[in-house]
Amino acid sequence: MLTLDKIKHAQSVLKEALYETDIKRTGNLTDRCELYVKAENLQKTGSFKIRGAYYKISQLSPEEKARGVIACSAGNHAQGVALAAQKNGIRALICLPDGAPISKVEATRSYGADICLVHGVYDDAYKKSVELQKEFGYTFIHPFDDEDVIAGQATIGMEILSQLKDVDAVVVPIGGGGLIAGVAFAIKHLAPHVQVYGVQAAGAPSMAVSLKDGKIECLASVSTIADGIAVKQPGEHTFAYCKEYVDGVVTVTEDEICTAILALIEKEKLVAEGAGATPVAAIMAGKLPQLDGKKVCCLVSGGNIDVTILSRVITRGLVTSGRQCTLNIELLDKPGQLVAVSQIIAKCGANVVGVHHEHANAGSEVIGCYLRIDMETRDFAQINEIKQALTEAGFKLCETL
Amino acid sequence: MLTLDKIKHAQSVLKEALYETDIKRTGNLTDRCELYVKAENLQKTGSFKIRGAYYKISQLSPEEKARGVIACSAGNHAQGVALAAQKNGIRALICLPDGAPISKVEATRSYGADICLVHGVYDDAYKKSVELQKEFGYTFIHPFDDEDVIAGQATIGMEILSQLKDVDAVVVPIGGGGLIAGVAFAIKHLAPHVQVYGVQAAGAPSMAVSLKDGKIECLASVSTIADGIAVKQPGEHTFAYCKEYVDGVVTVTEDEICTAILALIEKEKLVAEGAGATPVAAIMAGKLPQLDGKKVCCLVSGGNIDVTILSRVITRGLVTSGRQCTLNIELLDKPGQLVAVSQIIAKCGANVVGVHHEHANAGSEVIGCYLRIDMETRDFAQINEIKQALTEAGFKLCETL
Repeated sequence: MLTLDKIKHAQSVLKEALYETDIKRTGNLTDRCELYVKAENLQKTGSFKIRGAYYKISQLSPEEKARGVIACSAGNHAQGVALAAQKNGIRALICLPDGAPISKVEATRSYGADICLVHGVYDDAYKKSVELQKEFGYTFIHPFDDEDVIAGQATIGMEILSQLKDVDAVVVPIGGGGLIAGVAFAIKHLAPHVQVYGVQAAGAPSMAVSLKDGKIECLASVSTIADGIAVKQPGEHTFAYCKEYVDGVVTVTEDEICTAILALIEKEKLVAEGAGATPVAAIMAGKLPQLDGKKVCCLVSGGNIDVTILSRVITRGLVTSGRQCTLNIELLDKPGQLVAVSQIIAKCGANVVGVHHEHANAGSEVIGCYLRIDMETRDFAQINEIKQALTEAGFKLCETL
Repeated sequence: MLTLDKIKHAQSVLKEALYETDIKRTGNLTDRCELYVKAENLQKTGSFKIRGAYYKISQLSPEEKARGVIACSAGNHAQGVALAAQKNGIRALICLPDGAPISKVEATRSYGADICLVHGVYDDAYKKSVELQKEFGYTFIHPFDDEDVIAGQATIGMEILSQLKDVDAVVVPIGGGGLIAGVAFAIKHLAPHVQVYGVQAAGAPSMAVSLKDGKIECLASVSTIADGIAVKQPGEHTFAYCKEYVDGVVTVTEDEICTAILALIEKEKLVAEGAGATPVAAIMAGKLPQLDGKKVCCLVSGGNIDVTILSRVITRGLVTSGRQCTLNIELLDKPGQLVAVSQIIAKCGANVVGVHHEHANAGSEVIGCYLRIDMETRDFAQINEIKQALTEAGFKLCETL
């Protein structure tokens, strides 16, 4: 059973092995509230998951430790279990689907775990891990629905209360619910006036739907850039704790997540993964207006974002904030057209970074040609100014992708 | 004159306004030494520059404060002066060349400074700022060659000594030399056994050249992605302090800087700008072998990197570490060729992210065509495997760009 004593015990165990991560006052992410971030992306392994895994593993009996542990994950949980096992001197076997990102597989291996790549998707890897567990007597380390794991994550709630006096509310990402279950339990027992809100990706709202329906629901599918919280079904324990202790759950869109990731990079110099950026996304997008003017702590739960994804997120964030723009222009196939377009853009002060010019295709007239211009711009006002100037000069703008 | 007392005074003044930034043990950036980073990129305004500017401004007389301050910068110094002036309740005017990045201009404006955009380059803006200073009696805040400014930067040296017991060496970026002058002065007075090394971009080695020649040299031109340290000539004060207190200066290439920026993002979840990443680049590239096995603190001096640059740096870093690759393949213009190439790549386990297929151009035979494939790869070994498999299947690889 989860108790405050167990959480305090977890805190004393974790103290020797992990970081008490900083809480940072944010500069100008938002005017809505006094916003702080708990930078758990700077935790060992780059995410909070090591807390629960470490505490769980530390509490195993000597025989259990001797047999080793097994987990199924392609993400932060895998790295958390791997490093926690290594630090406790026991063997860890991690099952991953064979399509898992190379960087995550290598990171897990670098913490000393044995890797079992399973052909198929997550469910196949999970099935395999259960088989292996039965065959060899490993202890299965659940990513969230386990009271020792939840106690480990709850230590973050304890830290926030001691690091940030007078905090009014804490905003936490939700996947399976282990993190928020622990944080909310600790906070509501020690400082019941502090509000705890959860955030899910709109493409994976399993806890939000379950709470609304009053029972655990399993989504048919989930899809989000926030892979750390792409969970189809809450846990039994985590659902019960959320129902009791969480003040509300909201969802954020993919574009809101990208904007938050970009803002954390630009304004706070912190790298957050999709899941880790969701609380900041919820605040920036105005999804929690009840916190306006309050002292709010967003939990940036992790920073393990694949850099190729990061590169795309940056591009997307630049587009949605009006700082990058692609125009498709239909023009007559005669000399001087490119000069005229370039001059208009230069006069408006935008910076051209890419040009693609081609003759008639399915979408244009036979005598015409098609020009795609990629630009760095200041804001949407500047983009509109350019569009207007081009239109006034007689150029025909096509819908951009 | 710079004294330990002045630095301690600066420390007491800055305490109320700025952060004592964290020192973080790095995970696996290098096996060479026990590596820590002082995360000054998490300082207010995203760089250490506010320290010197704040202390300088705090020490002005009431009349000087009433007249306000002026500075010439397109970067971190501009933001530091702007925020320091705002916090001291005085007026700041910042001259910038009109080609300065929009994001930097907006950031400076957001801290309440007045902006004077000057047509031309940095030197033109500097000339204008001197004119304005004379005309209106503003105090000119030099970016580095000023003893109050140096005293402000020196507080970082004091913090490192108190935060990181038994540190063997500190590695610091050098532009004009204000940061390292202060840090080295403080460290050599309090803990002379601690070594202090400087790092410059190979494209802007003004201090390295000056120290080698034994006198201040002015470079004809500088060129580096590390815009924060693209300085043509060291200061008089800073050169003298470096000569006396710095143990050595090394340079790093652009690719080494990109690799370090990417490593800090991936492994440490920290966003560093080019200048800020140079110490880590020097360690990772083995430029300071005398520090192998030692306890080393790299000063990550700032994180204000333009996101469009960041996006390019990530791409470059992926390429130089073998995780992204572009192949140019000449093939015969007949059906089935794309299938064959795709199959070979898929079999080797790489992920195709871009395909450009076109007919004869200046570089290929009339009956041939040209295929460019962009892939995500694991490492150079995998790239070589793919190249070999393609060559064995009879495809002709062209030099990649």
